[in-house]
Amino acid sequence: MAIPAERRPAHLARLMKLFHGAPIARSMGTRLEYDAEHRAVFTQPYNPGFDHALGEIHGGAIATLIDNAGWFTVAGEYETWVATVEFQVRLLGRAKETLVARGRIVNAGKRLATTTMEIHAGDRLIAIGSGTFTVTSAPLPPL
Amino acid sequence: MAIPAERRPAHLARLMKLFHGAPIARSMGTRLEYDAEHRAVFTQPYNPGFDHALGEIHGGAIATLIDNAGWFTVAGEYETWVATVEFQVRLLGRAKETLVARGRIVNAGKRLATTTMEIHAGDRLIAIGSGTFTVTSAPLPPL
Amino acid sequence: MAIPAERRPAHLARLMKLFHGAPIARSMGTRLEYDAEHRAVFTQPYNPGFDHALGEIHGGAIATLIDNAGWFTVAGEYETWVATVEFQVRLLGRAKETLVARGRIVNAGKRLATTTMEIHAGDRLIAIGSGTFTVTSAPLPPL
Amino acid sequence: MAIPAERRPAHLARLMKLFHGAPIARSMGTRLEYDAEHRAVFTQPYNPGFDHALGEIHGGAIATLIDNAGWFTVAGEYETWVATVEFQVRLLGRAKETLVARGRIVNAGKRLATTTMEIHAGDRLIAIGSGTFTVTSAPLPPL
Repeated sequence: MAIPAERRPAHLARLMKLFHGAPIARSMGTRLEYDAEHRAVFTQPYNPGFDHALGEIHGGAIATLIDNAGWFTVAGEYETWVATVEFQVRLLGRAKETLVARGRIVNAGKRLATTTMEIHAGDRLIAIGSGTFTVTSAPLPPL
Repeated sequence: MAIPAERRPAHLARLMKLFHGAPIARSMGTRLEYDAEHRAVFTQPYNPGFDHALGEIHGGAIATLIDNAGWFTVAGEYETWVATVEFQVRLLGRAKETLVARGRIVNAGKRLATTTMEIHAGDRLIAIGSGTFTVTSAPLPPL
Repeated sequence: MAIPAERRPAHLARLMKLFHGAPIARSMGTRLEYDAEHRAVFTQPYNPGFDHALGEIHGGAIATLIDNAGWFTVAGEYETWVATVEFQVRLLGRAKETLVARGRIVNAGKRLATTTMEIHAGDRLIAIGSGTFTVTSAPLPPL
Repeated sequence: MAIPAERRPAHLARLMKLFHGAPIARSMGTRLEYDAEHRAVFTQPYNPGFDHALGEIHGGAIATLIDNAGWFTVAGEYETWVATVEFQVRLLGRAKETLVARGRIVNAGKRLATTTMEIHAGDRLIAIGSGTFTVTSAPLPPL
């Protein structure tokens, strides 16, 4: 069920708190905000611990941002838990610097939602993605 | 260029050494072996530091294994550096236990290679993936 | 809801009849059978009317077979209508001959199903695919 | 090699002629134009011969437009033949009316190009897609 407008700010605040408490967010040092259109915006400071063997950011760290950007953008639209069904990542450039990942809702249905995602390093487009998410009836975890 | 059979064992040994020295492999505690058909097999012991907010393995950690399984299976076929073009991840089950990821070559051309990947937790299929990789003329990094 | 075993043969017969009556099946001359594991197997005789400008089978005709192979394999598992959410096609070879497309269930859940698909021209693997399908509560159309 | 600006108009005219002569374009009645940014824009009048069993446009016909929109947008950037490596289609709505498909270049490299695609029925977004294309050294076919 789409979230009523008056409950949106508290809902997004709750999602940010949820994310910042998640183990993977702490391990990678990732930060989440929502923009004025309720899109998730992740900032990933460069962390050399997630480099591949050539000393640049590993595609898996980029995929983690793509998944997060889609999931948290979708989660902002529903009051119940959502789950990632599938996502695709297209790697366009190499980076070893701060990354910013953004999600965008393409379709938010009753049971399924579709997003596209983009990752930039400054002005450079580093990756794009897209994904499908399913809306469950499970409540969000208590904070 | 496909690798000559007599150079394959040394090549795979070099790739394993390369992987185990990569920062992300150390941060996540991932191990790589090659099976008898030269397919990359990754073992990822459960590491709660890569859980999402509900206390299960984050899709990004699964995507990292999918990317690795494809990349290192492709890299085993060529003597030069390969690069991930795109990959897709389909999440089929939740897990908080050791994961094993395997890659399989579908097509290994002169300039492009395609793989499928699978991740199991014991007998359970947790995720499948597929991806495209491009073969560059750059040498592998020195060890 | 998964289909009871005793109703499966009539269900698959109905799906074959449904497909062979569909306008696109008639326009393209495609035939559907089910194998012993209830997987959809499509045979597409070479039809030069679906060639691209270089005189080989267009990727869209291949994608149509990929979609069909997934959809009808999933439809064989449920008594209600299913809908394609997304699918991906990886083109591996060129062809201008009869194609055979097969679907395989990777996961058949209550609300969502995942398949992989393969297309061969004789022994040659021409394309692989994968897709997500959603299970609706709508009945199949009357024949 | 990216096409010089002065040769672009003739190149796009040639691609339009190539497409309109292709068997699949004739069979489906599809039309191609290029917009001011050299993006391929396909118009597909509703053709009930490509409906599925429920009497709406088959996902394969939509996938054909997605493939075309990406391929011809990429082909507009290079003087040699390009080939589709893979593409993904996300179906968002049902339609039985004229469809308009557009491609957009995300990345146009020396050997590989990435696009996104969109299909509308009037104002409704019916499908999105994305794909990878490889740039070959083969010349375009003579007209």
